Amino acid sequence: MKFICNQSDLNSNLSLVSRAVPSRPTHPVLGNVLLVADEKKGRVSLTAFDLSLGIRTSFAAQVIEEGTITIPAKLLNDIVSKITEGEITLSCELEEGNDSIIADLTSDSGVFQFRGMSAGEFPELPVVEGEAIMLPVSALLEGLGCSLFAASADETKQVLTGVHLTQSQNALEFAATDGHRLAVVQTGDLSQDDEEKATVQENKDFQVTIPARALRELERILASRQETDQVSLYFDESQVVFELGDQRITSRKLDGTYPDYNQLIPRQFSRMMTVERKRLLSSIDLVAVLADQKNNIVKFSLDEKTNQLSLSVEAKDVGSAKQSMPVQIKGVSIDIAFNIKYLLDGLKAIPSTEITMQINENNQPVIFTPSGDLKMTYLVMPVQIRD
Amino acid sequence: MKFICNQSDLNSNLSLVSRAVPSRPTHPVLGNVLLVADEKKGRVSLTAFDLSLGIRTSFAAQVIEEGTITIPAKLLNDIVSKITEGEITLSCELEEGNDSIIADLTSDSGVFQFRGMSAGEFPELPVVEGEAIMLPVSALLEGLGCSLFAASADETKQVLTGVHLTQSQNALEFAATDGHRLAVVQTGDLSQDDEEKATVQENKDFQVTIPARALRELERILASRQETDQVSLYFDESQVVFELGDQRITSRKLDGTYPDYNQLIPRQFSRMMTVERKRLLSSIDLVAVLADQKNNIVKFSLDEKTNQLSLSVEAKDVGSAKQSMPVQIKGVSIDIAFNIKYLLDGLKAIPSTEITMQINENNQPVIFTPSGDLKMTYLVMPVQIRD
Repeated sequence: MKFICNQSDLNSNLSLVSRAVPSRPTHPVLGNVLLVADEKKGRVSLTAFDLSLGIRTSFAAQVIEEGTITIPAKLLNDIVSKITEGEITLSCELEEGNDSIIADLTSDSGVFQFRGMSAGEFPELPVVEGEAIMLPVSALLEGLGCSLFAASADETKQVLTGVHLTQSQNALEFAATDGHRLAVVQTGDLSQDDEEKATVQENKDFQVTIPARALRELERILASRQETDQVSLYFDESQVVFELGDQRITSRKLDGTYPDYNQLIPRQFSRMMTVERKRLLSSIDLVAVLADQKNNIVKFSLDEKTNQLSLSVEAKDVGSAKQSMPVQIKGVSIDIAFNIKYLLDGLKAIPSTEITMQINENNQPVIFTPSGDLKMTYLVMPVQIRD
Repeated sequence: MKFICNQSDLNSNLSLVSRAVPSRPTHPVLGNVLLVADEKKGRVSLTAFDLSLGIRTSFAAQVIEEGTITIPAKLLNDIVSKITEGEITLSCELEEGNDSIIADLTSDSGVFQFRGMSAGEFPELPVVEGEAIMLPVSALLEGLGCSLFAASADETKQVLTGVHLTQSQNALEFAATDGHRLAVVQTGDLSQDDEEKATVQENKDFQVTIPARALRELERILASRQETDQVSLYFDESQVVFELGDQRITSRKLDGTYPDYNQLIPRQFSRMMTVERKRLLSSIDLVAVLADQKNNIVKFSLDEKTNQLSLSVEAKDVGSAKQSMPVQIKGVSIDIAFNIKYLLDGLKAIPSTEITMQINENNQPVIFTPSGDLKMTYLVMPVQIRD
């Protein structure tokens, strides 16, 4: 195998796939990246796979001799990222019956040699047959951006560590919950973008729960794409595959029934408050310093008469904080308390200028919705406080 | 006590003194910062002191009522750094016979209350009587910048955890060593700056070893000062004090005899090599990735015939690296090996375009000197390699 490529191409593609390299591989070859040089296409593909998440990408290169090899991913990535821009030549000679191969990496200033392993050792990425579901990049970015943060980080919570995608009645819905808060986003149906709307509405109904970890990698790849691009989604009983041109992410699916979250969202509220999102966010961020010393709880006091919201935090033996801001309130005054982390996560993810908060009583779920066209609901359970 | 000040003044001065606040205070009050509001001067001073290192600074404020208080430093710093720019009012009411005081901090958006402690609990910063030694900021920045990195980080190495300052024969010398490498810088005597030269030459002869930790704080404070400013240095048997206007750093001195380092520096060399510093630095940085996998050793091969320097690293079972660059060599070819960390530290700290390396044999000390006016010597012991 031998190819010549730009340092920047190899570097950016290595960083991309490196995220699927396990930090403690169960088998040595999983710590490696698989390189495949295709002479006809004039491209080199890179693959990393931890047996759960797989990422494949490719870039243009001058392929002098076709071939495959696997090289320790972290080492290759660290070195390529430090080489100054310019041409890099990567080559190796395969020896029959020898699984250990020396790869030569040559740049302007010198040469590196790596002990690689033959590609035969590297596991195949899962392949899913069948018809693709077409997902517009714009819808995916909107849906993931406003739901991923709410998925559980606790691996024992199984299905809650993913985002649940549902296509029904012409709309594509993203939902994530960790049991304490829930984020739901609808795209397609109410989209301002006719092309996005048309694409989403052509899909058959489906539902699938995908690990948040794989979706974060998808989000990262999408960030550099045109909003008008489309992603193909394939899934079967156990695997899910996203395809975007030459790039591919594969992941195991999450088993189990996803909670029927829509029944958790109240349809009627006795109180409503609208507030400037960034103002609220910076005030919560400020009082969080003190809440962090104790129980991470902030109390919202809505005063209907003055149309004012006061946030207060009490940290016994340390101090207290109070921040106030103008808001619009409908309904009678109320005190209601929250875990600060849930508020910060949601207020950071929602991209709108204003936020509306809908409340019933201080022991019932509250929902936050953005101003503007985005159809997103963020439900948070309040915390009981003793007076 | 009550004063009004700018958020930015309070914030920058708090960050400065916070570095002398111990992360695990042996007594609660040491985790606090001492605030003293002086009505006549119209200034507020801040002090932090961990019983070894002390930092005091002050800033202009509208002092409405004189007074003193101590407030938990980290909490105050975290909150003030998050408050949006504008005016901050800090006030407290002292109660007779009560050591626990509530301090109110008010900004545009709301109020914070902190449980503080009376200033009476806070230890006094050491005071050193006697005549000041005047040190130009330019000489200090040059001397510290090229010596501090070589001090030992191992607290058990006592006197080697400091920088040794010596004034003799009209020159001010900075030296630091951890036993494996040595950095020596001379300022004043050969200074291009007449004012600096005059100031240094007026000083009486002295020598003192000062903890690197205190000098790093001094360097940080100096970075925002004019090069033409002067720092007053005072010291007695146990303490050293730096004064720069309203800012003051106090530190315990390091006891024990500093090694007679000048006798370690060879005066004659059989070989000499000159190389572009940044080129050498980036090549070492690159091969360091591989060296990091094994023993951190890089081999320099100087080829007199081709005027070329090759760096090579062997990491058994992982790979190897070789980088070459043009250099000017005097003397016969040689192979010589070093610990990569010592080279990186030195090459990063020395500010010159070119570096000259002087060598005798591959088991004898090597010295690196910068091109230009800076009078600095960096001595490194080579590592023995088996062929």
